[in-house]
Amino acid sequence: MKLVRKHLKRVGLPPGALIHIGDRKIEHPRISLFDYSADRWEEKTLDHVEESFPFKETPSVTWVNVDGIHQIELLEKLGAGFGLHPLVLEDILDTEHRPKYENYDEYLFTVFKMLSFDDQTGDIQAEQISIILGPSYVLSFQERVGDVFDGVRGRVRNGKGKIRRMGADYLTYALIDSIVDSYFIILEKIGDRIELLEEELISDPTPKTLQTIHRFKRQMILLRRSVWPLREIIKDLQTEGSPLIGETTDIFLRDVYDHTIQVVETVETYRDIISGMIDIYLSNMSNRMNEVMKVLTVIATIFIPLTFIAGVYGMNFNYMPELEWRWGYPAAWLLMFAIFCGMMIYFKKRKWF
Amino acid sequence: MKLVRKHLKRVGLPPGALIHIGDRKIEHPRISLFDYSADRWEEKTLDHVEESFPFKETPSVTWVNVDGIHQIELLEKLGAGFGLHPLVLEDILDTEHRPKYENYDEYLFTVFKMLSFDDQTGDIQAEQISIILGPSYVLSFQERVGDVFDGVRGRVRNGKGKIRRMGADYLTYALIDSIVDSYFIILEKIGDRIELLEEELISDPTPKTLQTIHRFKRQMILLRRSVWPLREIIKDLQTEGSPLIGETTDIFLRDVYDHTIQVVETVETYRDIISGMIDIYLSNMSNRMNEVMKVLTVIATIFIPLTFIAGVYGMNFNYMPELEWRWGYPAAWLLMFAIFCGMMIYFKKRKWF
Amino acid sequence: MKLVRKHLKRVGLPPGALIHIGDRKIEHPRISLFDYSADRWEEKTLDHVEESFPFKETPSVTWVNVDGIHQIELLEKLGAGFGLHPLVLEDILDTEHRPKYENYDEYLFTVFKMLSFDDQTGDIQAEQISIILGPSYVLSFQERVGDVFDGVRGRVRNGKGKIRRMGADYLTYALIDSIVDSYFIILEKIGDRIELLEEELISDPTPKTLQTIHRFKRQMILLRRSVWPLREIIKDLQTEGSPLIGETTDIFLRDVYDHTIQVVETVETYRDIISGMIDIYLSNMSNRMNEVMKVLTVIATIFIPLTFIAGVYGMNFNYMPELEWRWGYPAAWLLMFAIFCGMMIYFKKRKWF
Amino acid sequence: MKLVRKHLKRVGLPPGALIHIGDRKIEHPRISLFDYSADRWEEKTLDHVEESFPFKETPSVTWVNVDGIHQIELLEKLGAGFGLHPLVLEDILDTEHRPKYENYDEYLFTVFKMLSFDDQTGDIQAEQISIILGPSYVLSFQERVGDVFDGVRGRVRNGKGKIRRMGADYLTYALIDSIVDSYFIILEKIGDRIELLEEELISDPTPKTLQTIHRFKRQMILLRRSVWPLREIIKDLQTEGSPLIGETTDIFLRDVYDHTIQVVETVETYRDIISGMIDIYLSNMSNRMNEVMKVLTVIATIFIPLTFIAGVYGMNFNYMPELEWRWGYPAAWLLMFAIFCGMMIYFKKRKWF
Amino acid sequence: MKLVRKHLKRVGLPPGALIHIGDRKIEHPRISLFDYSADRWEEKTLDHVEESFPFKETPSVTWVNVDGIHQIELLEKLGAGFGLHPLVLEDILDTEHRPKYENYDEYLFTVFKMLSFDDQTGDIQAEQISIILGPSYVLSFQERVGDVFDGVRGRVRNGKGKIRRMGADYLTYALIDSIVDSYFIILEKIGDRIELLEEELISDPTPKTLQTIHRFKRQMILLRRSVWPLREIIKDLQTEGSPLIGETTDIFLRDVYDHTIQVVETVETYRDIISGMIDIYLSNMSNRMNEVMKVLTVIATIFIPLTFIAGVYGMNFNYMPELEWRWGYPAAWLLMFAIFCGMMIYFKKRKWF
Repeated sequence: MKLVRKHLKRVGLPPGALIHIGDRKIEHPRISLFDYSADRWEEKTLDHVEESFPFKETPSVTWVNVDGIHQIELLEKLGAGFGLHPLVLEDILDTEHRPKYENYDEYLFTVFKMLSFDDQTGDIQAEQISIILGPSYVLSFQERVGDVFDGVRGRVRNGKGKIRRMGADYLTYALIDSIVDSYFIILEKIGDRIELLEEELISDPTPKTLQTIHRFKRQMILLRRSVWPLREIIKDLQTEGSPLIGETTDIFLRDVYDHTIQVVETVETYRDIISGMIDIYLSNMSNRMNEVMKVLTVIATIFIPLTFIAGVYGMNFNYMPELEWRWGYPAAWLLMFAIFCGMMIYFKKRKWF
Repeated sequence: MKLVRKHLKRVGLPPGALIHIGDRKIEHPRISLFDYSADRWEEKTLDHVEESFPFKETPSVTWVNVDGIHQIELLEKLGAGFGLHPLVLEDILDTEHRPKYENYDEYLFTVFKMLSFDDQTGDIQAEQISIILGPSYVLSFQERVGDVFDGVRGRVRNGKGKIRRMGADYLTYALIDSIVDSYFIILEKIGDRIELLEEELISDPTPKTLQTIHRFKRQMILLRRSVWPLREIIKDLQTEGSPLIGETTDIFLRDVYDHTIQVVETVETYRDIISGMIDIYLSNMSNRMNEVMKVLTVIATIFIPLTFIAGVYGMNFNYMPELEWRWGYPAAWLLMFAIFCGMMIYFKKRKWF
Repeated sequence: MKLVRKHLKRVGLPPGALIHIGDRKIEHPRISLFDYSADRWEEKTLDHVEESFPFKETPSVTWVNVDGIHQIELLEKLGAGFGLHPLVLEDILDTEHRPKYENYDEYLFTVFKMLSFDDQTGDIQAEQISIILGPSYVLSFQERVGDVFDGVRGRVRNGKGKIRRMGADYLTYALIDSIVDSYFIILEKIGDRIELLEEELISDPTPKTLQTIHRFKRQMILLRRSVWPLREIIKDLQTEGSPLIGETTDIFLRDVYDHTIQVVETVETYRDIISGMIDIYLSNMSNRMNEVMKVLTVIATIFIPLTFIAGVYGMNFNYMPELEWRWGYPAAWLLMFAIFCGMMIYFKKRKWF
Repeated sequence: MKLVRKHLKRVGLPPGALIHIGDRKIEHPRISLFDYSADRWEEKTLDHVEESFPFKETPSVTWVNVDGIHQIELLEKLGAGFGLHPLVLEDILDTEHRPKYENYDEYLFTVFKMLSFDDQTGDIQAEQISIILGPSYVLSFQERVGDVFDGVRGRVRNGKGKIRRMGADYLTYALIDSIVDSYFIILEKIGDRIELLEEELISDPTPKTLQTIHRFKRQMILLRRSVWPLREIIKDLQTEGSPLIGETTDIFLRDVYDHTIQVVETVETYRDIISGMIDIYLSNMSNRMNEVMKVLTVIATIFIPLTFIAGVYGMNFNYMPELEWRWGYPAAWLLMFAIFCGMMIYFKKRKWF
Repeated sequence: MKLVRKHLKRVGLPPGALIHIGDRKIEHPRISLFDYSADRWEEKTLDHVEESFPFKETPSVTWVNVDGIHQIELLEKLGAGFGLHPLVLEDILDTEHRPKYENYDEYLFTVFKMLSFDDQTGDIQAEQISIILGPSYVLSFQERVGDVFDGVRGRVRNGKGKIRRMGADYLTYALIDSIVDSYFIILEKIGDRIELLEEELISDPTPKTLQTIHRFKRQMILLRRSVWPLREIIKDLQTEGSPLIGETTDIFLRDVYDHTIQVVETVETYRDIISGMIDIYLSNMSNRMNEVMKVLTVIATIFIPLTFIAGVYGMNFNYMPELEWRWGYPAAWLLMFAIFCGMMIYFKKRKWF
């Protein structure tokens, strides 16, 4: 996840001017169309976006999905055909946009972040998905060909569930639900990593462990930014009472709202846990360090007086009576041993090692 | 309490598709039924869920309790019999769901967490309890056979209190009250542990103490997640003014709301206290370490100049007049003793040990 | 102030079942009754609670104060006589209850915490006071015989102030005002202690100082829990517009609300100051430690090369020309002195001691 | 700024009982009166407060300013003459009161804190200013003779600005504006001090620097308490729509509200910056300490093996062949020099000093 | 960005008195005028501000831009010509004013901060921009000649986009949009710096790195103060429903509101990341220090017993049998080597270096 959002290209342009912001993630855009009602469905891949216009007014539900959004002319045509506001097109093209919801009366416009977790590097990638809900059509835009909507496609094809019996609002719900569901996958993967980290933290913490924790912490900061607006978006969708969303779908949106809160709470919980892990790491480290320093210092402290004694009897004074004594040397050893024992006992008693 | 909630099984399924999420905690589900009015009560264990359907429309209060929710067909039948929305069944089955309240007009649906404290390990286990309040019936779902509702059962049987004279709304209140009451038990057990920890912190803190504190801190993060939504749920229940809840019961819900706030506040207080304990531990440790290091360093510092003196008179220069002196050796001792005393006085004066 | 609130006795009982929670702080409950209007007053101590019932309906203001609440039968009789809801009685008996306010239409029910500061130990003790305001009567319940209401009693007796000319609502205000005023006494005592601690922190900080600071911090956590709900309670009392509270009394409640906010803010300020004190203590300690370590290490560092020199000329090689020199020994001293001076100058210049 | 607010005197008194709380800051109260309309003004110093009563009902704007509020009888007379509520007088006398605003319908009552910064000690002193706005009069109360309102007096005298053409509400605004303006002076003085501190922090931080930072931090805690309520007070004044405040004055209150927010934000910014400074100080100190310890330890570490070598050849074994060698002594020096160089290279390479 | 806002000049002046606060950033003010409708536009630089007055009432959109605001007479004339409230002029002149929005019914007044980033020093400079939206005119005030509005000028000139077809409200939107867009440039530059810092933090952290991080932190505190009020301002502009803002422009304001939130969130994210960086720096430093200290102490600890042994056999007792032994010297070496090996093994095993 990038920190800096490359917005510079937009600056200075008139609003509604169309420009693609972000990386081009696919060569040629792919447009696919679904049209269905309770008893039938058809599916085709469009070569020209104009082929979808006739479906706009039909009573059957039409779902146009565009994978790859960098071809501005394509979007312009689509915008003209479906009567989209230039600002909507601008937001679709600006893949660094914040998740949002806007009610344009004739249609509802939402922007989401689709997240994917790179198992290798542990990085989170964000891709933008925009969904427009009209009276009997749904337009969805992805940056690349993805599989997040495959479940929905399958349900439309085989007519399982109630999707074919419901309208475009239910389809929109199903798409949002797929996106929110995909967050759970990310969160579990991150959760697994956090649990691994927690074990590592207890068994064998190294400076690299701390680095990984900090990387997770930073990812949480960025993840939170993608997830937090979701709450508000789905709440608004549900409570604003647009005539485009029927009452039956409302209950389902309430359900996806619940899931969203769960996602948000999980991110917050992860943040709390990661903060706790940093504290644990630091106090562990300082503990370990203290242990080392204490033992080493104790050793040094014990030998210092002994060395002093040895030094005393290494002096070359002419008249040092102890040196002449028969038992002087063993006595010196005895003295040193006594000092050694005394200090050991003292240190042990004060629990210094 | 697990960190990662296993949600993966659900992802990609159509909404309302029934699938059990969580561990199977009991072999065979047990269905028990209570039917009572002010002057009579009957109680039976059902072999087939269908046996409960006739009671649904009777004016007497019917309470169906299901222990063990992993048999999907059972829930499907019950859902059909009592006209439950598929999303309700989905939420009952998803035992990792967040506590919630939803008003489906004909019935009210609530999900709670039942907590239990493992005295051995000090872990908190969460079990999900779902309660549905209809006009004259209450359905409750537990993951395993539990004793939390035994008090309510007893009151229905012996007709003590006002429970038999009141409707299904009061029964729901009584069940919720039992759950919230059970939180107090957990909180007191945790509180006792915290007080033990506080004593340990003062008398004999070890790195293990810190580990335990951190474990408590983490449990508080997770506990909070179960407890926090309660506030909102019971507030909503009480203030939304559903016709299913009579005015007399309202006062009781207000009372349970008070208890909920007390639970939430206690959890927050525990968090504050645990945070304070970590600070105390760390400053204690650093204090103790400083004490050790200071004394040891003082000892080393005193002997270093003495050893130096001994070293000087151990030099082998041919012309060292002190060595020839009659009282050279005692003078050296005197010098060393003087240095020793001087340093001791200096250190004492500056309160270095 | 206890951390764990002993709630266990209640768990499993039907709501409204009366049970006394807390310590029995007085042997026999004492019931005293005041009845007054603008021109007269009477005061008696009741042997039987029933003696107060006739006063309930009189237009004069009746104030029944019960000291000692552990006799359940007494409360039951009172509850029956004044038509109190069982939950009210339950809350009066539960002395670990959170401060609260509830409007039962015919009467208003409030629970407060009366705090007292133990000058010896520095501990804060909490006692529960419940006040019920009816149309022309006030019931108040204390855990033990206290003097907090003595000022009010005096004003009723001697007819000073406007208390005798006002109704039961003003009496209630006067009681609440007494309680809130008593908080100021506690806060000032704590404030004095904090100032003493601050002086100690500058003049002579010891680990015991830190312990005391942490004890204060913890007390603030618990104190806050008693004080925080007050705000809301008195706001609700004032703004809810119950017909039991006249407009004239409203202004006085507004005044007590101001005092409450002042209490809450003072507690918050104390928390901030105590947090700051911990920081000051820790940085002082680490500063002092650094001072010690630095001086000691400097001493050691200076002597180490000197001892090395002494060691060199203590070697026993046959051919060591310096040893033969006439001025070898003084030269060695000179060398050592030069090294000593060089190091001192270097350390001084770098401001290491 | 005192931490403990001396409230004890009030405790136990009936509400509205008048008692002066705080220090007597002036010997004799001084009462000055301004009466003006667009084309005339008069100004006098009153000996008796009763002289002001005739002005109360005149259509011209009357401003009575009382410096010194400890003479209770004076306030009682004034209160009687202008029909003030006893609680208002009580609040005026209680100089430790929190800033507040209250609407008594016939007049509006506000309490502010006037701050002054002691350039010598760097302490902030608070003085209480109460302002009462009636239909055509303004009463203001200060604890001592001050110059904060001199600008307003000047504008009334010379008729500059619109003050003479406007009513009592504008005068009140002008007084409040003077008070808020005076905060900016304080804030800039504090800001200058903070900048000085920041420089000191970089150039020459000492433990005294930290002490000063902590003193500033504590002052911010107390300053905040004076400033924070301002926001609310002026917002209420402006939005409550009292008929005493005309629409033209409203715009000016909006302006002073802006300034208030700026004051509040500046205090918050200072808090943030001061917190940051503590962090900088601590990390600087630990950095410096580490530097010292590292160099010293490196020196010690280098000499320890050398001293060991010298010790070895100081042993007195009969058969030590090295001692007999012709080049033994230079070889020993060479060995020691080699070890010295080796260690220096190793330490340099690892950037340890 | 300065910490202390120089407000002193204002203090004591009557409200609405005009005085320029801030640095004079340009010699002579430059007044430029644009007047356009869908099919035509004219542009001129005015010598006298009065030349703009005739355009005020024309139905075409008039945009007067003033670069350099220190000439008070100029502003007074403009204020008289366009009927501006004195407080508006005061706010325009006070370049240290907080961003704000005020509705004066006939016109809307907004104050913004234009930020610029000094690539050399990494400092953020703030310049104040005030915009007044009247029915068919827009007045904008800058402190110096800037290029932020060049894009808008270009669009007016070449008639690209819808700006010429829309009213003064859209022009105001376009100006605000330019300002908000310019924030993104600043944020990206800061973001780039932060990323550089993060790399430096991992590869080669020095105390200077920490200083830079702290400087960034402090800049974020001040940046936040400029950016935070934007949210509220644009929200108010959009939702207050002034008749001066048409519905078509509303959608665009909603869009700029989105951008504002993105700016605010980015600032918050930066703050979080910078906080994290400080933690990383500190733990890295302490880690590194520990590493050094540990290795050095280990070395010292190993040699201390060896030196003791050497000292023992340097004693001059007459009767030391070991000294006479043939293999005494090699045995001593052997002993010392054994001790050395033993300690190395012990330390290695405990992973102390």
